[in-house]
Amino acid sequence: MDTPSNTTSLEQLKDAYEEARGKHLKLNMSRGKPAPSQLDLSSALLGAMDSYMTADGTDARNYGILDGIPECRQLFADLLGLNPDRMIIGGNSSLSLMFDIVAALCLFGTGGNRPWQHYRYAGTPVKFLCPSPGYDRHFRICEELGIEMIPIPLNEEGPDMDLVTTLVRQDPLIKGIWCVPLHSNPGGVCYSSRVVEELASMETAARDFRIFWDNAYGIHHIYEEVALKNILDACEKHGHPERTYYFFSTSKITFPGAGVALIASGPGNIKELKGHMSAQIISYDKLNQLRHVRHFKTPENIRAHMAMLADELRPKFDLVLSKLEMGLKGTGFASWSRPKGGYFISLDTRPGCARRTVALAKEAGVVLTDAGATYPYGKDEKDSNIRIAPSYPTLEELDAAMDIFILCIKIAALETNNSK
Amino acid sequence: MDTPSNTTSLEQLKDAYEEARGKHLKLNMSRGKPAPSQLDLSSALLGAMDSYMTADGTDARNYGILDGIPECRQLFADLLGLNPDRMIIGGNSSLSLMFDIVAALCLFGTGGNRPWQHYRYAGTPVKFLCPSPGYDRHFRICEELGIEMIPIPLNEEGPDMDLVTTLVRQDPLIKGIWCVPLHSNPGGVCYSSRVVEELASMETAARDFRIFWDNAYGIHHIYEEVALKNILDACEKHGHPERTYYFFSTSKITFPGAGVALIASGPGNIKELKGHMSAQIISYDKLNQLRHVRHFKTPENIRAHMAMLADELRPKFDLVLSKLEMGLKGTGFASWSRPKGGYFISLDTRPGCARRTVALAKEAGVVLTDAGATYPYGKDEKDSNIRIAPSYPTLEELDAAMDIFILCIKIAALETNNSK
Repeated sequence: MDTPSNTTSLEQLKDAYEEARGKHLKLNMSRGKPAPSQLDLSSALLGAMDSYMTADGTDARNYGILDGIPECRQLFADLLGLNPDRMIIGGNSSLSLMFDIVAALCLFGTGGNRPWQHYRYAGTPVKFLCPSPGYDRHFRICEELGIEMIPIPLNEEGPDMDLVTTLVRQDPLIKGIWCVPLHSNPGGVCYSSRVVEELASMETAARDFRIFWDNAYGIHHIYEEVALKNILDACEKHGHPERTYYFFSTSKITFPGAGVALIASGPGNIKELKGHMSAQIISYDKLNQLRHVRHFKTPENIRAHMAMLADELRPKFDLVLSKLEMGLKGTGFASWSRPKGGYFISLDTRPGCARRTVALAKEAGVVLTDAGATYPYGKDEKDSNIRIAPSYPTLEELDAAMDIFILCIKIAALETNNSK
Repeated sequence: MDTPSNTTSLEQLKDAYEEARGKHLKLNMSRGKPAPSQLDLSSALLGAMDSYMTADGTDARNYGILDGIPECRQLFADLLGLNPDRMIIGGNSSLSLMFDIVAALCLFGTGGNRPWQHYRYAGTPVKFLCPSPGYDRHFRICEELGIEMIPIPLNEEGPDMDLVTTLVRQDPLIKGIWCVPLHSNPGGVCYSSRVVEELASMETAARDFRIFWDNAYGIHHIYEEVALKNILDACEKHGHPERTYYFFSTSKITFPGAGVALIASGPGNIKELKGHMSAQIISYDKLNQLRHVRHFKTPENIRAHMAMLADELRPKFDLVLSKLEMGLKGTGFASWSRPKGGYFISLDTRPGCARRTVALAKEAGVVLTDAGATYPYGKDEKDSNIRIAPSYPTLEELDAAMDIFILCIKIAALETNNSK
């Protein structure tokens, strides 16, 4: 199907749409799932191992070592420039670590400060700053735990720091900020060193203000390697060693369902977390940690693996971007991100067109992330942002899906024009 | 070393003790860890699989299926007589499922009732009944979450049900009871059908009263197969379909660090839990679920595997029991359990002797679970109960450890006599 030209009438677009709808396609660009071809690149990780003994003589099959086997902590410490003694390797999900830590802060507080639940019961719930558009599952954690969310514009080099610094200086109920500092979900924003420095050094009214640093795409470069200033070092330098919880996982390195996740933080936080975790679990899956260590061995090997994954993803991003360029450039119907890495392309329709576009696409068999999902409470005030996840479909599927998607953007835009 | 005869003087015992201490042994009977020889019996589980597709065509390596792959739910449903649609397969730890559920009840409540944290903030914390001696990690969850614990005597066929039914009928703040219904930790108690019926049918002042049914040793028979009445069926029959959370895991079937755990419950609870879990995790490790399904295939194969594990454990239990018999029978210094399965032997010294016995043993290189650990808040009022975990040491180590342990029991008993 050819994308109708940019001067096509609404009627012609609708004819093309009906034709597409008649094909009963089932295409999905909704979630950041790696494609099977990406997963296959880690197959060798899943074989039997010669021995199940860790370097310190622990049997990885048995109970023990709450914070993860030393060689696994060392591998990720070397990869990310972290301190292996200020790290806990968790299970298969960094999201779980995030939820568990926010829940622990609600239930127990941190550093002798009041549990965050206290404020909820006092009628003044704590608040989180939410650079937006952002990751829907971060916002879901806040909603679940009754934490109020304040959207913060996410600019080219990170959150609007004038707004952030003003708010955290004034309001002691602001206890946290969600950050995806590299190749952000969905906008592909990479935080500049200046932003990292400001986050680390800023004055906060809350003594227990915390940065939730979800470095999910920390080594997930596609077009260009982007450096990120080490926030834990910066926080320590500025006298706030406990300010940041740093998350990472291999969900998009090895297997989304069966990777390993980690949390790194200041020495006080790590000690506190181990205390809480010791009531929750005896040890995470050390065999899977050992599999990852034996498979990769060095940070260099992990980076080489990421280059192969980037080779899988690049043609898909190329296709989406060139389709958008061909179909929408100059129309004024949409603008979009040109990410250097990560898993998403963020697209902004004209105000008031996102929901309609997503609904039209769904009706024609193309599933996108729900419009609004990239904002706290699912409320995109402008009704404009749509997240495109190009990783899972094949190039052929992506090609068909993008044609329909672009058609829907145009129809929604022209409908809005007409109704004005 | 020969165990001194039962008429030996304290002085002679102390000589023998000093001799043992001089050997600087390092023996550990403290935790219920399977021995390496047990773990080796599941080695075949760890090889590569031909395909990573589940029966319904899901790629187990990728995201998805929050409640666990259907064939894994079916396998454990068949094994335990449960409903696969009222089950969630978790990660490697049933303890985590327990903690997460109690934490969710604290944070969110259940069935529209008040979150349990509410009572804490109102100055009247909720309470759990704790059949004792019991599992220290259950008690730790309560302590961590500020839940008051009421010890309940654990008799031959289960908790003292006269006391349980009276308390739960009177006090709406009693919200839960911890149960290890088969081969209980540490006493080896198996709940009778009468007890299960009473638990399922009893009237409770709290509408949100819950039974935490940790069936950790549900198929872990060593000397004799013991049947357990299905509590979920009994609860449903008596009109309380949401009363029980049922836990199980393969920690002591395959690998303590890398098994799979499950929670089964009423339809309302499972729906509620999936809601909370969907904020916490995208999916648990499905590859490990698939490994377990491909390896075992049928409940019969799991039971055959358990018979092999029992063959590993039986000589160790035999040794401990015969040593106790030889060394302590007729002395009046101790009584002990003769479990039909599970992982522990529970020993009661004379009142006031448990701490001293454990300290003496530690000093001589034999580590036992801390005295008191089997009671809420670590408080064994009689200072009498000691948990013996015979699974991990070799027979030779166990032999040496038991000699020293028995010596310590005698010394502590005679010291107490003398000080009277």
